[in-house]
Amino acid sequence: METIGHVRNQIRELIGEYGEREHDAIVSEIHIDPKYAEALEGLEGRGPYYVVLYLFHKVEETHLKAHPRGDVTRPKRGVFATRSQLRPTKIGVCTVELLGREGLILKVRGLDALDGSPVIDIKPYAERFDAPARFRDAGP
Amino acid sequence: METIGHVRNQIRELIGEYGEREHDAIVSEIHIDPKYAEALEGLEGRGPYYVVLYLFHKVEETHLKAHPRGDVTRPKRGVFATRSQLRPTKIGVCTVELLGREGLILKVRGLDALDGSPVIDIKPYAERFDAPARFRDAGP
Repeated sequence: METIGHVRNQIRELIGEYGEREHDAIVSEIHIDPKYAEALEGLEGRGPYYVVLYLFHKVEETHLKAHPRGDVTRPKRGVFATRSQLRPTKIGVCTVELLGREGLILKVRGLDALDGSPVIDIKPYAERFDAPARFRDAGP
Repeated sequence: METIGHVRNQIRELIGEYGEREHDAIVSEIHIDPKYAEALEGLEGRGPYYVVLYLFHKVEETHLKAHPRGDVTRPKRGVFATRSQLRPTKIGVCTVELLGREGLILKVRGLDALDGSPVIDIKPYAERFDAPARFRDAGP
């Protein structure tokens, strides 16, 4: 698992018991390691949506069950039925909008990650992999 | 990074130069490690869509550029502008439909993974994280 860059934004704190925040409007930068400069070529030529994989680098505990959406008033469920960060593999997945790129810095909107989070992959959003079947194009 | 289970299906071979196959109709089983039984509780209670993270366990090379969709007639692009398996972090992300569960075995449709692929996470699909902003609910 290779760190390809880091998140820079204004989010400094986890919320509640690893709860959730409104992240749609948050603008972040992703600073890419210079060794991956060539791997960014063509990024702007596609649609604006990307799937970002990053690490929950502030979370060490692993639980088998957690409160859905970090809401302690709701009964716990298996972590694979929640998006809790307490899960065994501490990887976050979030679809973002690419607003622009300046060299090694990507500006994105909608990334639900803390400042300093290591980024391990960036994939172009593709309906054939990422959309639920009910939304996929019915093309050949 | 923790392996939580393995894929069982009929897909034995990578295609072409790590190209793509039609995977929408493919039915796979995910066999979960018994130590994570409790982490599956409540999985059936949600909508049918899950995001599965798995390893490209047959791919060792890393390239900075690759042919889009493995199509050698198209010019290479930076790997972060493709879904190529030649990327630095060998993790696949795919949204699947949960058809059913029997104990530790999940039956899913639409997983683009080889037989034997280690699975590292299963997350409930959530529009607020996974859908492009243009498709997200405009709720409060």
